[in-house]
Amino acid sequence: MGDPGGVGAECLVKALADKDRRRSARFLIFGSAQPMRDAADRAGLGHDWWRVAEGSDAHAAEAHDVVLIDSGGERFAPGATREGGRLSFRWVERAIESCRHGSAQGMVTGPISKTAWHAAGHKRFPGHTELLADRFNAKRVGMLFESPKLRVILATVHLPLMDVRNVLTIGRVFDAIDLGNEACKRLGIESPRIAVCGLNPHAGEGGLLGDEETRIIEPAIEHAVRTGVHAQGPFPGDTIFNRALGSEFDLVVAMYHDQGLIPVKLLGWDRAVNVTCGLPVPRTSPDHGTAYDIAGTNRADPGSTAAAIDLCVKLARNAI
Amino acid sequence: MGDPGGVGAECLVKALADKDRRRSARFLIFGSAQPMRDAADRAGLGHDWWRVAEGSDAHAAEAHDVVLIDSGGERFAPGATREGGRLSFRWVERAIESCRHGSAQGMVTGPISKTAWHAAGHKRFPGHTELLADRFNAKRVGMLFESPKLRVILATVHLPLMDVRNVLTIGRVFDAIDLGNEACKRLGIESPRIAVCGLNPHAGEGGLLGDEETRIIEPAIEHAVRTGVHAQGPFPGDTIFNRALGSEFDLVVAMYHDQGLIPVKLLGWDRAVNVTCGLPVPRTSPDHGTAYDIAGTNRADPGSTAAAIDLCVKLARNAI
Repeated sequence: MGDPGGVGAECLVKALADKDRRRSARFLIFGSAQPMRDAADRAGLGHDWWRVAEGSDAHAAEAHDVVLIDSGGERFAPGATREGGRLSFRWVERAIESCRHGSAQGMVTGPISKTAWHAAGHKRFPGHTELLADRFNAKRVGMLFESPKLRVILATVHLPLMDVRNVLTIGRVFDAIDLGNEACKRLGIESPRIAVCGLNPHAGEGGLLGDEETRIIEPAIEHAVRTGVHAQGPFPGDTIFNRALGSEFDLVVAMYHDQGLIPVKLLGWDRAVNVTCGLPVPRTSPDHGTAYDIAGTNRADPGSTAAAIDLCVKLARNAI
Repeated sequence: MGDPGGVGAECLVKALADKDRRRSARFLIFGSAQPMRDAADRAGLGHDWWRVAEGSDAHAAEAHDVVLIDSGGERFAPGATREGGRLSFRWVERAIESCRHGSAQGMVTGPISKTAWHAAGHKRFPGHTELLADRFNAKRVGMLFESPKLRVILATVHLPLMDVRNVLTIGRVFDAIDLGNEACKRLGIESPRIAVCGLNPHAGEGGLLGDEETRIIEPAIEHAVRTGVHAQGPFPGDTIFNRALGSEFDLVVAMYHDQGLIPVKLLGWDRAVNVTCGLPVPRTSPDHGTAYDIAGTNRADPGSTAAAIDLCVKLARNAI
C-alpha cells in the first residue's frame, strides 16, 4: 500500500476498480483498511476487497480476488510520520516474505517516504531497491523504467553526478546491459536490441570530450556482444532516445539518473513504471512519490500504479 | 552557407524559397554559386538570388532581396575537405565583418565540419561559437536552444561530463541565467520566468546526493534574483522540463550538455535553433550538422534552417 499518509491507498483502490485488472491475478494487499475505505468513498467506489486482520488465518480468504491484510490503524494525516514509516516498512517486509515463501509470484510497491522510514528507525535502506537486494540476497540489481514509448535501464542511480566516475566500471555497465536484456526477454522480446549511451557530450566525440566511452563503455558492450547480447553503442545521449522512439531499439542503457529519467518522464509522464531487475521475482512500482500535497483529495492519477500492476502480472506470467 | 560539401546550400535554397521569409529581411549569402544552383535544380526551384562575384562591388546588388557573394568553386563532393574548410571558415569571417561594420544586423551560420576546418589549418576554434566570441571580443557567451515547445540555455557545453566540476562556478551559472534572461527579453518576453536545473539527481535531495546545488547553483540564483531576474530553482532535471512544457517557465537553464539537449532534441527534432547569446548581434544556427550522408540527394529538411533565419530576423528587429 505504501505510506499510509500518501496517495498509495487511493491509487491502489482506483487501479483495482478495473474489472479486467482484478481478474488478471489474485491480489494480496499489505496495508491498512481505513485509508482504503476513505479513498474508495471519496472516489465513489465500493469496498471491493476481502479484509483479513493481520495475524489471523489468511488462508480463509483464498477464494477472493483481492484480499487486504489489515494492520489496523485509524486515519493518517498527509505527511511523513514515524507510524507511517513503521507500517510501510513492515508491509514491504511482509510482501517480500510472501514472495520468498512462494505464496506470491511478484510484488508491486506503493510510494514510501524515506523521511518516514528514517523516523521509524529504518536508516539502513534509503529505499525499496536496497532493501529488496538485501532480503533476496541479490548480487546485482538494476533499475529499469518502462513507459509506453521508451524502456530505459540505469547503470548508476542515486549518487552525486560527479561521483559517477568512482562507480562506473566495465562490470557495472555490463550488468546494466545484461539485466536489461533479461528483463526484455521476460517481456516477450526474443532478441532484444539494446542501445548503450555514452557518458560525455557526443559520446566523447572520439576521445576529444572524455575517455569513459573507450575505457569503460565500449569494453562492456563488447563483452555483452560476446555473450550473445545484441548491444550497440556508445551513442550520444542527446540523439539516441529519438532513435529508440523510432522502434530501432527495445532498450536504452543510460549511464546516470537524469540521462535516463529526463526522456522517460518527458514521454511517459504518469505512465512510467519502475522495475527492479535481478531479483528472483518481479518487482514493479509506480514512478511517483507519496504526493502528500494531494493526499486525501481524490486527485491522484492511478495510471502509473495500474501500469505497475499490469507489468508485474505480465512479468510473473513469463517467469519460469 | 556552411560547408560546401554538406547540406547547407540545400537547406538555404529551400528555406529562402518561402516568399514571406524572403520579404522579412534582406539576405546576404556568403557562399559558392554551384552548390546553390545544384540544390535548386534538384529541388525544382528557381535560382532566385542575385549573384555577385566575391571582390566585386556588392553595393550594385543592394536593390535585391537575396544576394549571393560567390567565392566561385566547382562542384563539391559530399565530405570534409581542406578546400571546404577553407571556404566555410572564410564565409563565417566575412559574415562577422559585415556585422561588425554594420552592413548586417545579424547572422545565421550553416553547418560546418570541424574536421574540414582542422584540415584547412583552422585549429584554434573548435566551432562557430568560439570563433565568434573571439572576433566580437565577447567576455561571455551562452548557447541557447529555441524549439517550438522548449527554450534551454546551457551553463557548460563541450567538455567531458566529469570535468563539469572544474568549470561550474557561481559566475558561470549566473551568466547563463543572465544571458538567457536578456535573450528572452529580446524575444519579446517582458519578465521572463526562468527555471534553473540542479546538477545532481533530485537536485541533490537536500545535500544527500551532492552539494553543487547549495555551494554553486543556489547562490547564483540568489544573485540573479537580487539583480531583478525572475529565476527559481534548483529543480530536479528529470521533472522540470515537464513543468516548462506546461508554460510555467519561459526558459530552463541546464547545467550540462545532455541535460539540456536530451529534452530539446526529443521535443523539437528538426525544429530546434541554436542561438549564441552575449554577442553584439544575434547569431543563430540550425541544430544539425553537415549531414554528408544525405548531401546532394535533395533529402535535407530545411525546417531548422528556416527556423534559424526567422529567429535571427526577430532578434535583429528587437535589438536596439
